[in-house]
Amino acid sequence: MAAVVSTSASGVTAARGFRAAGIAAGIKPNQALDLALVVSETTARAASVFTTNRAVAAPVVVSREHLSRSGGAARAVVINSGCANACTGAEGLQAARDMASETARLVGCPVEQVLVASTGVIGVALPMDKVRAGLPKAARSLGADQGAAAARAIMTTDPFPKEAAAKIRLGGGAADVSIGGMAKGSGMIEPMLATMLAFVTTDAAAPQLLLERGLRDAVEDTFNAITVDGECSTNDCVMLLANGASGVTIDERTYPAFVGGLSTVCRELALGIVRGGEGATKLVTVVVTGAASPAEARRAAKAIANSPLVKTAIHGGDPNWGRLIAVAGRAGVAFELERAAVAIGPTVLFQAGRPYDEAAPLAAEYLRGTELTVSVDLGVGSAASTVWTCDLSAEYVRINADYRT
Amino acid sequence: MAAVVSTSASGVTAARGFRAAGIAAGIKPNQALDLALVVSETTARAASVFTTNRAVAAPVVVSREHLSRSGGAARAVVINSGCANACTGAEGLQAARDMASETARLVGCPVEQVLVASTGVIGVALPMDKVRAGLPKAARSLGADQGAAAARAIMTTDPFPKEAAAKIRLGGGAADVSIGGMAKGSGMIEPMLATMLAFVTTDAAAPQLLLERGLRDAVEDTFNAITVDGECSTNDCVMLLANGASGVTIDERTYPAFVGGLSTVCRELALGIVRGGEGATKLVTVVVTGAASPAEARRAAKAIANSPLVKTAIHGGDPNWGRLIAVAGRAGVAFELERAAVAIGPTVLFQAGRPYDEAAPLAAEYLRGTELTVSVDLGVGSAASTVWTCDLSAEYVRINADYRT
Repeated sequence: MAAVVSTSASGVTAARGFRAAGIAAGIKPNQALDLALVVSETTARAASVFTTNRAVAAPVVVSREHLSRSGGAARAVVINSGCANACTGAEGLQAARDMASETARLVGCPVEQVLVASTGVIGVALPMDKVRAGLPKAARSLGADQGAAAARAIMTTDPFPKEAAAKIRLGGGAADVSIGGMAKGSGMIEPMLATMLAFVTTDAAAPQLLLERGLRDAVEDTFNAITVDGECSTNDCVMLLANGASGVTIDERTYPAFVGGLSTVCRELALGIVRGGEGATKLVTVVVTGAASPAEARRAAKAIANSPLVKTAIHGGDPNWGRLIAVAGRAGVAFELERAAVAIGPTVLFQAGRPYDEAAPLAAEYLRGTELTVSVDLGVGSAASTVWTCDLSAEYVRINADYRT
Repeated sequence: MAAVVSTSASGVTAARGFRAAGIAAGIKPNQALDLALVVSETTARAASVFTTNRAVAAPVVVSREHLSRSGGAARAVVINSGCANACTGAEGLQAARDMASETARLVGCPVEQVLVASTGVIGVALPMDKVRAGLPKAARSLGADQGAAAARAIMTTDPFPKEAAAKIRLGGGAADVSIGGMAKGSGMIEPMLATMLAFVTTDAAAPQLLLERGLRDAVEDTFNAITVDGECSTNDCVMLLANGASGVTIDERTYPAFVGGLSTVCRELALGIVRGGEGATKLVTVVVTGAASPAEARRAAKAIANSPLVKTAIHGGDPNWGRLIAVAGRAGVAFELERAAVAIGPTVLFQAGRPYDEAAPLAAEYLRGTELTVSVDLGVGSAASTVWTCDLSAEYVRINADYRT
């Protein structure tokens, strides 16, 4: 009844009535873009999921407060890269509040309608003089064609910006609805009920509870199904702003189509994060089948996707399927070795208790590719899960051994 | 009342009445030692802890069966490296049984008094012709001075052999008791109630239940408190043989001293495994305090010790304490950011909600060392745990990207 009618390269400004900006405020060295704004022309409804890390960064605290005080009304999001403003005490909390109030003044809205996000090094004070000087410049740069600049301004170790958009037709003569977004993230990536930074906008309108449900549903099999290194950050968040500029309001009847479009955008952003994972050279889809429950399938898939031995073997193009079995066996889920199976791409290497190591050269050939699938059947039940990850390279070590130097 | 009176360089043959052998059977290339025997002159009592991985290797299945059938009586252990004999189906199970029965014939004991262990690549058939040809040669080489050869014959990616021994005096005019052992392990190291391969011998005698309890107690804060890469193997085991050759029988009164000596040997072997972890350049002691319970302290310490971001930062000598906080916050344990604290060596970098980043240069200087301690206080309770790990280097990736090539 409804379908994604197009996806385009444009991102957080693909939906009508949204403008964005990305400028260099001097938080990062070398005039790199480091301060972004996303502004809705009218007051939008906002939903957000945040990190489940108990060490919560100041901007997460402030954004949660604002969403609660405004009842989900939002006009703007202000984001800086180059500094996470996490573990920065009372001073950091004040900095996040000041970022929001300065933005509210420039946009002309109540402070509680401004959401704040930061990303970068933990434990370093945010240089508020630079943020204060940069914000008016960002406000002047706001444009419906500045989504790409904003996507660049939120990057840290990301090798490329992540943007995605979809246009969906809800049927019944209604106008098309656009959904667009941008995301950043490369290391410290294993969201837990929340994720790295992602900002999604739509010109649909939706009741607050439906919007929140839609975001949770879309995130579950997209941002929550990826991992680079099993690390959940202090600053993760996905924010969704819906301003209704399309004239279409989502209801229970059109909800499935809306979530379908939202998932399309979220999945493209999430896979972009994995493709651009720190040191990554391959995108790996991990499929677990034959599990006792969906939760056990996800748990086993995450264990495989986070295994350094699996990730290094894939990096080296080594069809070392025994490591996949070893991880499945230690994942703390029901597992029957005699009924389990392993495949690398289309090649089965272990089944019914017997190895097919003679097929290893075929699997090795397949592993030369850059978009790979590995499958493990736990041999127990019928539940399945899919998770995306990347390989583990010496470059990951290099990046993280001297992140701050 | 009792004390470790000496530790020496000798290993699995340090205790009276044990002989060992390590020879090249051709399972590994280049005439590397790959087949080991440990034999007690008289029937010993044996206790063992095995991997908790649900994908259990054939030698683990056979050793468990034999211990159960013999009621804990054992004369010999036969170990090969170069092939894990895991995920090898019915054929692999037969190979493990054949290894045991051939050893029993050579030693002259019932087959159920022989324990079997294997380590190496998963999913490859054990070349039984080579094992069969090698075993008589190993039996001929048995000697009280061949512990070092045995320790070499069980190595895979280990950069050096691991041996340890202790002599303890139990007081009351009793003779001294010796405890010695050897271990292997470098990658796929995060034991869960069991561990990599370790073989410990003692010339004490002990009732079966006391021996089993002693091994569990000693393992908990030694082998079970280390991690290289968070991977639990299909073949892990620690075996303890007690032959009573000292004339001393352990009882409830002397049990604490015996476990003290046993822990000394196990800790030295376990730390050897971490020092020789794949690609390791530093031994890292992770101390977690202020936890709600010992289990939560251990869980947080393990999460920190397995964090690729913590391990790469330490590798690079970067005092990036924010990563320690981020891991503690996502470890799934009670944690209070405002009351938490982080120290690298003696330098406090975060306390009472405030960063002391100005002390980072001191911490960076400390991180140039090769034996390091990092401490995190969770700010909640009074429980603590200590875990040992190593750094994560590009060399780890190199080793594991082409382990089989």
